[in-house]
Amino acid sequence: MPDPAILPRIQASFDRQTMMRTFGATMLAAADGRCVIRAPILPTVRQQQGAAHAALAFGLGDSAAGYAALTLLPEEFEVMTVEMKINLLAPAVGEALEATGEVMRSGRRITVVRAEVVALDGEHRRSVALLQGTMIPVEAR
Amino acid sequence: MPDPAILPRIQASFDRQTMMRTFGATMLAAADGRCVIRAPILPTVRQQQGAAHAALAFGLGDSAAGYAALTLLPEEFEVMTVEMKINLLAPAVGEALEATGEVMRSGRRITVVRAEVVALDGEHRRSVALLQGTMIPVEAR
Amino acid sequence: MPDPAILPRIQASFDRQTMMRTFGATMLAAADGRCVIRAPILPTVRQQQGAAHAALAFGLGDSAAGYAALTLLPEEFEVMTVEMKINLLAPAVGEALEATGEVMRSGRRITVVRAEVVALDGEHRRSVALLQGTMIPVEAR
Amino acid sequence: MPDPAILPRIQASFDRQTMMRTFGATMLAAADGRCVIRAPILPTVRQQQGAAHAALAFGLGDSAAGYAALTLLPEEFEVMTVEMKINLLAPAVGEALEATGEVMRSGRRITVVRAEVVALDGEHRRSVALLQGTMIPVEAR
Repeated sequence: MPDPAILPRIQASFDRQTMMRTFGATMLAAADGRCVIRAPILPTVRQQQGAAHAALAFGLGDSAAGYAALTLLPEEFEVMTVEMKINLLAPAVGEALEATGEVMRSGRRITVVRAEVVALDGEHRRSVALLQGTMIPVEAR
Repeated sequence: MPDPAILPRIQASFDRQTMMRTFGATMLAAADGRCVIRAPILPTVRQQQGAAHAALAFGLGDSAAGYAALTLLPEEFEVMTVEMKINLLAPAVGEALEATGEVMRSGRRITVVRAEVVALDGEHRRSVALLQGTMIPVEAR
Repeated sequence: MPDPAILPRIQASFDRQTMMRTFGATMLAAADGRCVIRAPILPTVRQQQGAAHAALAFGLGDSAAGYAALTLLPEEFEVMTVEMKINLLAPAVGEALEATGEVMRSGRRITVVRAEVVALDGEHRRSVALLQGTMIPVEAR
Repeated sequence: MPDPAILPRIQASFDRQTMMRTFGATMLAAADGRCVIRAPILPTVRQQQGAAHAALAFGLGDSAAGYAALTLLPEEFEVMTVEMKINLLAPAVGEALEATGEVMRSGRRITVVRAEVVALDGEHRRSVALLQGTMIPVEAR
């Protein structure tokens, strides 16, 4: 069940991202320049050694950062990723990955964002990736 | 049918990446510090406006860069991504994405890589993303 | 006067960086995975519009991140920058820039670091740049 | 003597960058989305082991990339760096560093750039750094 505090336009945009559905991802929070997205580490998203592929950590972190940016923009906007950098801290193993995106500076022309991705394994939380990037507002069609 | 010039250990490693299977990706070439991977833009890998999600361009570019690095390493190694940066040049629309990874410097401790991702649309090829990052060799188990 | 809590080997390494002297930079702190470096915005370090050149924010942030990493390494090591990414948040104007570097993960083979650079203008502090990168330990000669 | 093919407004902008003067840098070319800047490795720009500080390679690469972008913009614009990432390939030792900036995609809102920095040592040229980043046009005042 989606968090009732998430704006309908943001939830609807997330729901249109079929990549998030493929990843089994859920948006847990999105408000005030912050967004949390979680996805299980499915058998279908692995790299060659059985850990989650870097594209999963990247995809969750990028979407969490983008929706964090969107929470601070007027209704008529969407955001697009201009660039994103990811540093991988540890193998992404466990039951699920949880990405928290955060706006560092929201400007008229660009928004600078960061995200952290943690691997969840039972009670254990381990930071597996850090992202830093740039979003640009675009008029929604 | 896989390219017969691709070393069996590289093809086998690629085949173990279930994320590449989820993306419908194929390795078209991998030799001499260069690797090409292609995937259709499936209905299951979109962002909210219908273009391919940045995670697809990232995942193909990251894997192409990683296998490019692996072609220059001794048999007993795998590679892992230390960090990767992607700049998105244009919306990733069309039939397929093709990523070409290239080794810029192969060292004992780290390998510096670049990748370009192009969108294929009929006869048209359009550059949609540039990646630059670092791979680290790890002993295969 | 250097902070007495800074290890002599770290202060000595910093003092050998003639670039820091050219920038008029001082190391204010270096311990426990954190380092602070400050420099005035001299007339000699400007870009074309009179703000500090991005190379000043980069250089201070990079050195602060590197010495933060060095505080967590055994005595016989130096560090080198593998890669560093900087996002510029606002024009770097004011009297001085202060960079705070921080270790995000210290590993045997690589150390992941972040840094923030703030512009100091009277009582006012404004964040002007965020850095994220990778350091590698090297045996000191 | 400046290259006569360099537009006066671009040369004038470069000449206002006092950081470039501090580095002893010269603009060798700037036209058609490409720019070359060279600087000696002065005793005043070193890191702790005697090689050029990463801030020198960064500063030359960043300015070369920025002026490459500027060659493709209308007269009333300046550019600012949004973000820049540098991978260091080898210690920057030798007589001089030469940075070549190149536009990868010039858009209305952002320009994506790359730069390569080579160390010159007698007849020898060695690639020491690769940069990839984003420039944004701003109205010149």
